[in-house]
Amino acid sequence: MENFTFYSPTYFVFGKDEENNTGKYVKRFGGSRVLIHYGGGSAVRSGLLDRVKVSLEAEGISWVELGGVKPNPRSGLVYEGIELCRKEKVDFVLAVGGGSSIDSSKAIAAGAVYDGDFWDYYQGKMVEKALPIGTVLTIAAAGSEGSPDSVITKEDGMLKRGGHGEALRPAFSILNPALTQTLPAYQTACGITDIMAHLFERYFTNTQDVEVTDRVIEGLLSTMIHEAPRVMENPDDYQARANIMWAGMMAHNNCCGVGRVQDWASHDMEHELSAIYDCAHGAGLAVVFPAWMSYTMEHDVMRFAQLAVRVWGCPMDFAHPEVTARAGIEALRRFLRSIGMPENFAGLGAREEDIEKMAHTTCYGNGRDGHIGGFVPLGEEELKEIYRLMV
Amino acid sequence: MENFTFYSPTYFVFGKDEENNTGKYVKRFGGSRVLIHYGGGSAVRSGLLDRVKVSLEAEGISWVELGGVKPNPRSGLVYEGIELCRKEKVDFVLAVGGGSSIDSSKAIAAGAVYDGDFWDYYQGKMVEKALPIGTVLTIAAAGSEGSPDSVITKEDGMLKRGGHGEALRPAFSILNPALTQTLPAYQTACGITDIMAHLFERYFTNTQDVEVTDRVIEGLLSTMIHEAPRVMENPDDYQARANIMWAGMMAHNNCCGVGRVQDWASHDMEHELSAIYDCAHGAGLAVVFPAWMSYTMEHDVMRFAQLAVRVWGCPMDFAHPEVTARAGIEALRRFLRSIGMPENFAGLGAREEDIEKMAHTTCYGNGRDGHIGGFVPLGEEELKEIYRLMV
Repeated sequence: MENFTFYSPTYFVFGKDEENNTGKYVKRFGGSRVLIHYGGGSAVRSGLLDRVKVSLEAEGISWVELGGVKPNPRSGLVYEGIELCRKEKVDFVLAVGGGSSIDSSKAIAAGAVYDGDFWDYYQGKMVEKALPIGTVLTIAAAGSEGSPDSVITKEDGMLKRGGHGEALRPAFSILNPALTQTLPAYQTACGITDIMAHLFERYFTNTQDVEVTDRVIEGLLSTMIHEAPRVMENPDDYQARANIMWAGMMAHNNCCGVGRVQDWASHDMEHELSAIYDCAHGAGLAVVFPAWMSYTMEHDVMRFAQLAVRVWGCPMDFAHPEVTARAGIEALRRFLRSIGMPENFAGLGAREEDIEKMAHTTCYGNGRDGHIGGFVPLGEEELKEIYRLMV
Repeated sequence: MENFTFYSPTYFVFGKDEENNTGKYVKRFGGSRVLIHYGGGSAVRSGLLDRVKVSLEAEGISWVELGGVKPNPRSGLVYEGIELCRKEKVDFVLAVGGGSSIDSSKAIAAGAVYDGDFWDYYQGKMVEKALPIGTVLTIAAAGSEGSPDSVITKEDGMLKRGGHGEALRPAFSILNPALTQTLPAYQTACGITDIMAHLFERYFTNTQDVEVTDRVIEGLLSTMIHEAPRVMENPDDYQARANIMWAGMMAHNNCCGVGRVQDWASHDMEHELSAIYDCAHGAGLAVVFPAWMSYTMEHDVMRFAQLAVRVWGCPMDFAHPEVTARAGIEALRRFLRSIGMPENFAGLGAREEDIEKMAHTTCYGNGRDGHIGGFVPLGEEELKEIYRLMV
């Protein structure tokens, strides 16, 4: 295990009806003039936004609002939000929605108190100061409700990049599993895939002696495998939604990723797919991960076998561990298929002829030096091969 | 799963040599005049205390010190620490040691800014204000480095009671596994037992649909079972110590206990044992837990069977689940024996003739109403029976 620091100071409020306490928590964490930032119609139609406003009103907190966040949130709306915050002297940014609304809110919160262009933060500069952020989560997926990360797409060139910094951790996050019950099945499945991907990115490491984080990751993956069919079968299953929602937070606040080199090549590869084709992030990951696993399996067969045995319940083939390792990857494919995720480029609307370009951008974009991945370092040629496995 | 809040804002600094950065973190979290509070000779002899002081000096931070904390820390020293803090205008309490030093520091930090008697906090009053606390941990056991709890024994009547409140969560905790390498084997084993007990107290619940926290608890228990023999065999095994140390934090900061009713009857029963016989807390728990399990098993055989299968690797007897459940309890007994823990009253120096008194105090002490335990409520008669199973 390597030396690390871990800091997750977000106040989590979990359970039924808790969005009605939003105003109370905004006040506790110092907000008096709020930007409510959200996506499209569902938060409005469901009455969620009204409930949040009523709770702010009850605490005497005023607000301005900015809707229109889209999946793979764009820089244009971030600039708009920053202007609005400055003009309206906003002192607190409240995200109502999923990872996209939260990530866009984080970018606004950082940009509003920064003299330069907020995009600097998405080109490697660490975020050290931001307005306090609160979230009312409506999708279990991105883990942004408990993470110091944000992903934004710059329209100019469709560059999808990540910003980071402890200042981006929300002051509070309200997680009401019931709010996720109205999600379409496809979005629910994308969220499940995203959560599992956050766990895989941490699981595949060359760091030795990380039993404690291995075991927690395996436990969270087992939870997802247990709960996913329940929620796909019955979208109103509050308890299954609740288990998935807490697993989603733990998967990405990094309590199970500390002390180990992580990988993240699959996320990097997926970001090119969703930047170009605007596909759902989770759907992209469903196509990338099995391909990446098949390609990298030989690097550490026993780690793949451990995953297969402990998480997928595959029998260990002691004479041929690679058989077990491969069975685990096949189990993941079957699982993703069973929840309705795409299996290849066709399912994403992606095109084989873009592979060269994607491999190049993945390697060299965002100031990268031509290689990505902490488990198996991958260069342009290797990435082309992996992308080809997805066709 | 029930509604909950979760808040663990401690900044964790984990790894080799990190105690040399203590001064930096005291400064970051606002300390300028520190009380260093510690136990006995080992922190002095090992040079740890000197390294901590050098790091404070480097940041221009002054200090006073108070040593002499004993296992099952006493109220007398707490009163002394409170006086010292007031007289010396201390603004930060730094614990150097294990759970006892940390718990005593928490009591001092709360008492120093409270007009009444600090013992009020150990009789049910919630701690809402305290001086900021930092810890340099030397024993993986109590989890106090990441918890909002503290346990103090009042000399007058030897009452061992718990105080609680978010203000008791340390601002930072420095966890260097190497500092635990010099512990005697018995203390190491007591720590392992304590960590596992914190997990069992959360595991045994009547709350339904808590797969995510079940799985994380099981993962942490599996880690302990894997790492304990390594560290008993080779006390200098840094990696095994590291896995145990992080598991110890996660076992008790409550990330795996949220949304479920917990039990804690075994801790209550043990507190009587260590208050009267001054035995090590972990050793007491090693005697209490198997007895408590045997007594309560029939209340939920399938939960005990789940633990036996998932954690101890017992084969499931589908026709007779109670056989599997019992095998899990036996596996725990064997495990505790293998790390040198006592099995009965004799191993603790406890006496059968004290059972009546202990059962009574456990039930009615600390303002209790005659019953303890969230999984199976236990009254005086039941407690007598369980204590008798330990003879």
